[in-house]
Amino acid sequence: MTAYTVDFEPVGRRGRCQPGKSLLDCARQVGVDITSLCSGRGTCHACKVKVLAGTVSRATSSERAVFSPQELKAGWRLACQTYPASDVKLGVPAESMTTLQRTQVEGLEVAVPPEPAVSAYRVELPAPSLSDLQGDSERLLETLNQQHRLTCRTIDLDVLRQLSPRLRAWGWQCQAAVRDDEVVSLGPWPSRELGLAVDLGTTKVAGYLVDLSNGRTLASLGVMNPQISYGEDIISRITHASGSTSQARQLQKLAARAINRLAADLCAQVKAKADEITDAVVVGNTAMHHLLLGLPLDQLAQSPFVPAVSQAMDIKARDLGLKIAPGAYTHLLPNIAGFVGADHTSMLLATEAWRAEGVLLAIDIGTNTEVSLIDGGWITSVSCASGPAFEGGHIKDGMRAARGAIERLRLVSDDIQYQTIEGAPPVGLCGSGILDAMAQLYLAGIIEESGRMVEGHPRLRRGKQREFVLVSEEERGDKPAIVITQQDVRELQLAKAAIRTGIQVLLETNRRTDEEIGQVVIAGAFGSYIDVASAITIGMLPALPLDRFRQVGNAAGMGAKLALISRHKRAEAQALASRVNYIELASAPDFMHTFVQAGSLGKYRMVHGKRKEIS
Amino acid sequence: MTAYTVDFEPVGRRGRCQPGKSLLDCARQVGVDITSLCSGRGTCHACKVKVLAGTVSRATSSERAVFSPQELKAGWRLACQTYPASDVKLGVPAESMTTLQRTQVEGLEVAVPPEPAVSAYRVELPAPSLSDLQGDSERLLETLNQQHRLTCRTIDLDVLRQLSPRLRAWGWQCQAAVRDDEVVSLGPWPSRELGLAVDLGTTKVAGYLVDLSNGRTLASLGVMNPQISYGEDIISRITHASGSTSQARQLQKLAARAINRLAADLCAQVKAKADEITDAVVVGNTAMHHLLLGLPLDQLAQSPFVPAVSQAMDIKARDLGLKIAPGAYTHLLPNIAGFVGADHTSMLLATEAWRAEGVLLAIDIGTNTEVSLIDGGWITSVSCASGPAFEGGHIKDGMRAARGAIERLRLVSDDIQYQTIEGAPPVGLCGSGILDAMAQLYLAGIIEESGRMVEGHPRLRRGKQREFVLVSEEERGDKPAIVITQQDVRELQLAKAAIRTGIQVLLETNRRTDEEIGQVVIAGAFGSYIDVASAITIGMLPALPLDRFRQVGNAAGMGAKLALISRHKRAEAQALASRVNYIELASAPDFMHTFVQAGSLGKYRMVHGKRKEIS
Repeated sequence: MTAYTVDFEPVGRRGRCQPGKSLLDCARQVGVDITSLCSGRGTCHACKVKVLAGTVSRATSSERAVFSPQELKAGWRLACQTYPASDVKLGVPAESMTTLQRTQVEGLEVAVPPEPAVSAYRVELPAPSLSDLQGDSERLLETLNQQHRLTCRTIDLDVLRQLSPRLRAWGWQCQAAVRDDEVVSLGPWPSRELGLAVDLGTTKVAGYLVDLSNGRTLASLGVMNPQISYGEDIISRITHASGSTSQARQLQKLAARAINRLAADLCAQVKAKADEITDAVVVGNTAMHHLLLGLPLDQLAQSPFVPAVSQAMDIKARDLGLKIAPGAYTHLLPNIAGFVGADHTSMLLATEAWRAEGVLLAIDIGTNTEVSLIDGGWITSVSCASGPAFEGGHIKDGMRAARGAIERLRLVSDDIQYQTIEGAPPVGLCGSGILDAMAQLYLAGIIEESGRMVEGHPRLRRGKQREFVLVSEEERGDKPAIVITQQDVRELQLAKAAIRTGIQVLLETNRRTDEEIGQVVIAGAFGSYIDVASAITIGMLPALPLDRFRQVGNAAGMGAKLALISRHKRAEAQALASRVNYIELASAPDFMHTFVQAGSLGKYRMVHGKRKEIS
Repeated sequence: MTAYTVDFEPVGRRGRCQPGKSLLDCARQVGVDITSLCSGRGTCHACKVKVLAGTVSRATSSERAVFSPQELKAGWRLACQTYPASDVKLGVPAESMTTLQRTQVEGLEVAVPPEPAVSAYRVELPAPSLSDLQGDSERLLETLNQQHRLTCRTIDLDVLRQLSPRLRAWGWQCQAAVRDDEVVSLGPWPSRELGLAVDLGTTKVAGYLVDLSNGRTLASLGVMNPQISYGEDIISRITHASGSTSQARQLQKLAARAINRLAADLCAQVKAKADEITDAVVVGNTAMHHLLLGLPLDQLAQSPFVPAVSQAMDIKARDLGLKIAPGAYTHLLPNIAGFVGADHTSMLLATEAWRAEGVLLAIDIGTNTEVSLIDGGWITSVSCASGPAFEGGHIKDGMRAARGAIERLRLVSDDIQYQTIEGAPPVGLCGSGILDAMAQLYLAGIIEESGRMVEGHPRLRRGKQREFVLVSEEERGDKPAIVITQQDVRELQLAKAAIRTGIQVLLETNRRTDEEIGQVVIAGAFGSYIDVASAITIGMLPALPLDRFRQVGNAAGMGAKLALISRHKRAEAQALASRVNYIELASAPDFMHTFVQAGSLGKYRMVHGKRKEIS
């Protein structure tokens, strides 16, 4: 076998496919983000591509199971199953790309006075001469300190390595970016002062490019986390990293590469270069935090589930493989516990939840859901293993929040009304759609409080198990129906029970009741899209008047931005993280009892924002 | 051409020789230090090897000029001229190896109370549990601070990356090495506390392994600087580094590799591992300092010759490619000027010269000679381009201080008496031998005060130029005679004039005379071997009573050791370097006049330690 050139269209990247490597391997190598959820075993069918030119290996049985003979003839293949036999040109459809999926990057803005950790100064130096032989480094530091009344003492080694030729090329005038007592970057004068805030999620990575001089967000962007090819959820990611040092290093590099690409793309939007970024803040859950830092994960996955490090850290960006200004640091907000990470700290920081008067509940819903109860300045936190159901995982027709996903759904008489992302023909159900479907079926009596589906409705049918048809074969033009099955309902019950148990344990620990909660803050991409009334109906969230709920979008990203702009906010984050009382759910009294009770669906429906008992 | 395996004996290393690469290239690649002074052009004849097995390319004309047909038949070749044509086995004779040459590692010892920058502490931690969920990093820091009343705040990232599995493997007991507020290394308890001091010379690299807990030197070792293959003196080294970024990086890597090998060999002597070294100090001249740090050198080689950095630095060892404890730092003592480096600072520190009462002259003789005059606490320094003559360079029969070099020589009547290194048959003259030869010929009237050789002596003969036969062809068994030529005398005059000019300018700047000098400290390998009386006779050193001279050996290495053991000494070094008044010789008034006068040989001979005018 020889190496062939593979051309990926319409993205327009090309690369060499080494012998023994599949089209999927080749795509990864050249940085084309083709979705693959099964580690290339041919079972997830996500990596569909179309061979536009050239010869490839024969279709495998997996492929013959997915594609019709006509489709195969038209060139449709699974990238993970296909090997080039000549130079080839591929068409990669949008649905096979991870990076085109919709992600949440907006969120609430909180204005703080800019007080960044890195500040830039213009320096004009006298040139050296035979009567003024001071070294370049000392010359810069002395002039900088004199001209701006600073006490800067050192220059980063990588900056120093460029210092002498640059000062000469720039005619002894420059802009120095200073952090504490160190020069971390050097540019011609004037240069921009850019900062990067990143929310490194298990599924999605959101980035914000900020002007450090005024705190203004210049650009924002969200991409899928490329690590997802090596495990959808945290646990499978940890398992992969624990497999070998090289696998852990691979995940570390993927995280760094995603941030690097985000930085480059954000900079391109404002015609800047990534090395103009002189400071960065990254938040993520504890596992993502550890993966990015290259820290071991075994102790996270084993009882008592402790992090390698909790406190806030400042690490040279280059030590993490981040390509921003040579001497820049990356600030990592503090983690709270093994499964309550810096992203939760960041959310508490951004929402100012931790300063609330009265009782406040702050929830970040995801594969893992973190919940904090703030009561008179005291913070108690738990972590709930809510699983992938809200992201469409383990649900028969579930999918991520991508084009064609049903995101809202109502049962009107026997008619189903729904809304899809981008208004496209329906493809499946994303988290908010699943939640709505369950609530609607419950309210219609098609699901009982226990979760059991009741026969009798014309749309309910029985295959291997009971399933309710949301969009029929006919409605989809002979494509398979979109349904919600008895098993789907059970999955969702487990997920919502986990969250409800977390809330319950927090309330009991603080000797509070549902009614005493003055405010519920829901953060995260999924949390921002859900219909809170549906969540109350199925008993996931406490049945409070709707005006007590606040859906705040990507608050973790906002917190990262605040910490980027303000040293004061960094200190605040460290202070709040260290005052959290973390409770390990499994060790809470009556945990199993609470969990089993939490599986039942709710007792209330919301009418005009107020609860009403379900009859 | 294909790649062949080359086996180097007796060192026992082997490697692949890539197509188009000579045996010398291959030797460098696998780390066998074969001497080559001509950059592989076949002119220095230093890289002799013997082919023991296998086929190689045909002998070149250079090789036929060096070796007899018998020698060629026996397998003798120049490594730089020879390419393998099969797998080959080579014998590398000792004289072709750079690492076996004699280097100076001893030196005066100064006892200081150990007060190292890095200290080790035993820590016993409570294991985490479901009721004690603190992160591993915080757990270690808190326990360490409590058990030893410290205020340690952070753990190096590389140490952190190993922390969690190690604490568990060691049963929650460890030894933490702490520098300021950072844990820089972690070992099982008990571990050793090792430090490394390095004098990175242009020609030689001396290393000392020190027990940080008591300041004792455990092992010392000297090797040749492997950069020497890319230029013997600083200027050609700078030229090579300035050629391209990859050449500069190559020299950086060679320096790091030399230190790494030194560290490994030193550790092997005491059955330790290099990652037990938790602190290091490196000194070198400014160019070597810059090369090791990967700093640009152009501004050093161009007027006004300023360093990129002068002040003392603390750099993570790994950022320089040094393989010691993962989080360890390397401390670099401060430079004084472009051509008065940290090695001179270190020498002033070690000899306590800078605290002398009265007038003291401190000299470090080498390819570049640094001289300082200390007068009532004031320090004035110059740098003299003394050239390679003292290391045997540019001298017809000159050589380095290796086996067979004539190191002492006397003319007794018409008879030459000499002493060679290791008592071996004479091969050539090293620096101290050349100095003696010149002084002896001058005293015998064979050389005039102006340096001109006078005819009339039976050993003086005239080939292309006048030359004096020190060891004749007959005395060497038909090998070529060892001579000193008129040109050699001129070279030495230039070298000694440079040094004498430096001393003169210092005296004039401080309005002092020779006689007022109370003490002369001579440091460095060469300086320790010379006959001071000879140096006075040829007018290189001031004609002072011999008891005012002190030859202190590798004082730079000693200074590095002091700075390693004592934080106080580091501060002292920074303080002394910053109080130096550096004079650029070329800009001194009457420089050329002084230099021309300094070319004449001396007016005195030393008799019983006192000077006597030469009649």
